[in-house]
This record gives sequence, C-alpha cells and structure tokens, in this order.
Amino acid sequence: MAETSLKNRISFLGPEASFTHLAASRVFPGSTLVPFTSIPECIEAVAEGSVEYAVVPLENALEGSVPLTVDYLFHEAQLYVVAEVLSPISQHLLVHPDNAGAESLEAIYSHPHALAQCHKFLYYTYKNTPLEQYSSTAAAAKMVSELPERNIAAIGNEFSAEKYGLTILQRDIHDFHFNHTRFFVLSKTNHRLEDPSHEGQVKTTLMISPPKDDRSGVLHQVLSVFAWRQLNLSKIESRPLKTGLGNYFFIADVLEDEQAPMMRGAFEELAALGCEVKSLGSYFTYKSE
Amino acid sequence: MAETSLKNRISFLGPEASFTHLAASRVFPGSTLVPFTSIPECIEAVAEGSVEYAVVPLENALEGSVPLTVDYLFHEAQLYVVAEVLSPISQHLLVHPDNAGAESLEAIYSHPHALAQCHKFLYYTYKNTPLEQYSSTAAAAKMVSELPERNIAAIGNEFSAEKYGLTILQRDIHDFHFNHTRFFVLSKTNHRLEDPSHEGQVKTTLMISPPKDDRSGVLHQVLSVFAWRQLNLSKIESRPLKTGLGNYFFIADVLEDEQAPMMRGAFEELAALGCEVKSLGSYFTYKSE
Repeated sequence: MAETSLKNRISFLGPEASFTHLAASRVFPGSTLVPFTSIPECIEAVAEGSVEYAVVPLENALEGSVPLTVDYLFHEAQLYVVAEVLSPISQHLLVHPDNAGAESLEAIYSHPHALAQCHKFLYYTYKNTPLEQYSSTAAAAKMVSELPERNIAAIGNEFSAEKYGLTILQRDIHDFHFNHTRFFVLSKTNHRLEDPSHEGQVKTTLMISPPKDDRSGVLHQVLSVFAWRQLNLSKIESRPLKTGLGNYFFIADVLEDEQAPMMRGAFEELAALGCEVKSLGSYFTYKSE
Repeated sequence: MAETSLKNRISFLGPEASFTHLAASRVFPGSTLVPFTSIPECIEAVAEGSVEYAVVPLENALEGSVPLTVDYLFHEAQLYVVAEVLSPISQHLLVHPDNAGAESLEAIYSHPHALAQCHKFLYYTYKNTPLEQYSSTAAAAKMVSELPERNIAAIGNEFSAEKYGLTILQRDIHDFHFNHTRFFVLSKTNHRLEDPSHEGQVKTTLMISPPKDDRSGVLHQVLSVFAWRQLNLSKIESRPLKTGLGNYFFIADVLEDEQAPMMRGAFEELAALGCEVKSLGSYFTYKSE
C-alpha cells in the first residue's frame, strides 16, 4: 500500500499552476503531484524516497535557476535523469473577469523573470503602468483572482488562468517565440521512461571534472574524445566547482545512449585523461504544449 | 551639465540593497546609482543613453538570471563589457532588533533562490519554521524592518541589514562557501575601466555563432582555434539561438586581450570556418567583499 502510494507521488517545484507543474502533469497525468518550495527540497524528496520522481526546471526557467539544479545534482544528490520535458514559454496577460472590459490597468504583477521576458510588449503597450515583482507567476495570478476590486493584471501561463478563473486579456505576450524551458525528471534508479514519440533521439547527460592539475586546453581534449567518434554534443557548459575560483566542471549532453560502444570507449578515454565522469543516465524527450 | 550628470549615473538591477547594488557601489563609489526593475530595463537605460554604465548580474545571481543577460546582449543590444565584478555570496539571517532575543521564529522570508542557497542551514536549524517566498532579498529585509510586532526573519546580505536597521541573528548561513556572483559593467563604447589591482588578468568575452549548416563537432573545431594558440578559456557555454530547437551559439571567456595578435588570428580563423564572432570587449576584474 505504501509502495503503491509512493509510486504515484511526484514532487515538483511549486507553487501549483507553475510551469513545472504543467511539465509534470504532461509526463504523469494520473499521479499525485506534490509541490515543493525550492529545488533542493524537490530533489531531496526523491533522494529520501518520499516520492518516486521529481520534476525540476533545468534551463531557461522562470521559477528556478539552472545553476541550482545542476549544482545540486553534482554536489549533493546521486540521482538519474529518466526523461526531459521541453515546454514552450507562453506568457499571457491575465485579469479578473470583472475587469476584462477595463481600458487601462492599475498595475501588472509577475515574477521578475516573466516581467523581463515580456519586456518589449510591456514597453510598447503598457509603458506607464507600474510593474510589480511577485514571488511567482502562479502566486501573482492567485492574488489577482482574490482582488476583483483592484483593476490589476498578472503575467502567467494558461494553467494559472484556468486554475484561478482569470480572463486572458492578451495571449502570447513573451518577446521570443522559440524560447523553451527544459525540465528534468529525476529518479533514484537509472532507468528511462518510455519514449513518448516512439522515434525520439536518446540523450545522455554527463558531468565531467577535469584533472586537478588543470592543463591549458583540457576542454579541447575532452571534446576531442567525442568529436573523433562523431558523438554529437547538443549542449556544453562549464560550471564553477565551488572549491575556489577558476576550478570548473563541465556538463555535456551527448546525443547517444550511454550503453553504446562508442560511449563506453569515450568514458574509458576520459578516465585515462584523468577526468572524473558522472553519467546522469540516458533519456527521451517529452514535449509539453 | 547634462553630460556631467549622465557621466555620474549608473543603472543597476534593483531594488536598493540588492547584491547588484553592492557590486555597483564597489566600482562606482561616488556616482548616482539608479535601480531598475528588470535586466532588460537596466541594459536599455545605457543603450538609450540615459545612464553611462549598467551593472547587471551574469552568473549564479540571486535576483536575475544568467540566460536573460546573455540573451539580451546577444539578441537585442550592441554594448560592451568594460569590467566584471566578482562578489562572494554571503547570506545572513536578519531580524528586527526588537526580536533579536526571541527563541524561535514565526517565519523566514526571502527570494526563492536565497532560500534554496541556505537549504542545509534551514533544514538543520529551522526545520519546522515556515519558509515564505518574496520577490527579492532586499524587499524581504524591508518588510521585516516594517513589522517589529511579528517575530519573522529575512535572509539577505549585510547591505540590507544596514539599510533597514536589522540585527544579524546568524552570519554566513549559505551552503557553499566558494560561491560567487559575477556581474558585468556595460557601456555603449568599447573601452575598459582601470585594472583595480594593477596586475590583473585581462579577459575577453566572445559570442560565437556556428555556420548555419551546423556540422557535427563544430564546437570542437571552434575550440581547436583557441587550443593550438594556447589561448585559455575560463568559461564556455552553449545557448539556444531561439530560431528553433537545436540551434545554438556559444559564449566563451578567453584569458587574453582582444587586440593581442593571437586573438586577431583566432578571429580570422573562426570567420574562415563560417562562424560569426561578436566580441563584447576586454576587461579587468573588480572583487567586491
């Protein structure tokens, strides 16, 4: 019984109706989704075994930050990526239905990153309307729903509009239309969720620490290991090791299965170069509307 | 007269007493520092000429996000980096002086990233105290200063404590002690602020777009251009181009002057490979306590 309930519990970075909530409900439509306040809490829930999976933002997120997720996985937790979710960023201007006909707005509330992502729209359409920072897009939507007497708006996603019964005054007000947020689905065991498209590209995420006596051009050497095997990297990023300035590790996404012979060869060669390699596992991509 | 006043005006990502404010006051102690609500507004103030310099967070920041600054510089603004500032992240637990002797706390308020950065301290010391998200560390400190009748705390920096007359109940509660925030000082013209240490390492930030018919291993080719010249990269990161999934550009920090002969050779070779290279300029590092 406890086993069954654990199996249906998923932690996500809240609050409810956040972009992460949207991503989690895409992958786990029938499960109990449990909001957590911070990325570390969300990750520790799965590490401690109180939920089966955690869904956290990784890249270009509004509510969370990339470094926090990557660094927590590197320094603190031994977890695996079992799927990734890509969601387009769609921001809408939301008002209480009572105020849907009003000509101007008293103020616009949202998370600082959401306000920034809609900068051009706000600049050209609401130049003289005060912009007010709020802790999340969903919390701003909730507040707008509770104050119909004030003619204020929130910037947030469709999910927030539905959840809090708000009217979408203007749709898709974000500046960049190919902008995506990327989420990781994390588990204690190394497996992979089924490929939703049945023809997807498998991806492996690696964390690579160069040898301590960091030689000039070590990143070039690391990339040579992948390049001559024609293993494609879809992303590479250096991150400070937090052991002092100038010490870095690399996070790389390789478009290949970690079990493929070329990948096993690459791991061996990286070890011979003195690098420590931690594979977070191989996984498929879920696309969320 | 207008010229003089422009020369003393610096935009920074607010609110007042933010980590960015601290960084800006390190580089421009005698200037008028003007807070802006978002990174785009802060950057546009210097692009439009209403301030002389802008100070914005770049890496590992609390109030802003890396992608926002990097992407805005890549897509929207033609500006140059004239200095960088490195500040250690020091988070303290702040209370109203009236409550400095209280045994427990009603709640702890801060920016979600600050709560996350102090996760271990909060987990072990204040496990049952509610954590409440706020739009910034400085705004949380201000709120605590205004509500002495509530026994609540904020997490924030020393500057916030001073500005709002709060008592530091516990110092340095952040989990990682080598964690730094990096800020860029931006200008419309390509020059560099004086090296504060007079013996600093010059650094150049480049944005490199690979050719459109992205061949496998293009990043490896790009790095070869730097590696055989023994030009050291202190950072490399791929960022989505926002023209569709899978199209990336790279941001690289090279430990060399953009005018050095080896760098000019590297630029020519990158152009021959079909890459577009945008140099944000060469600059020195200011360290903020």
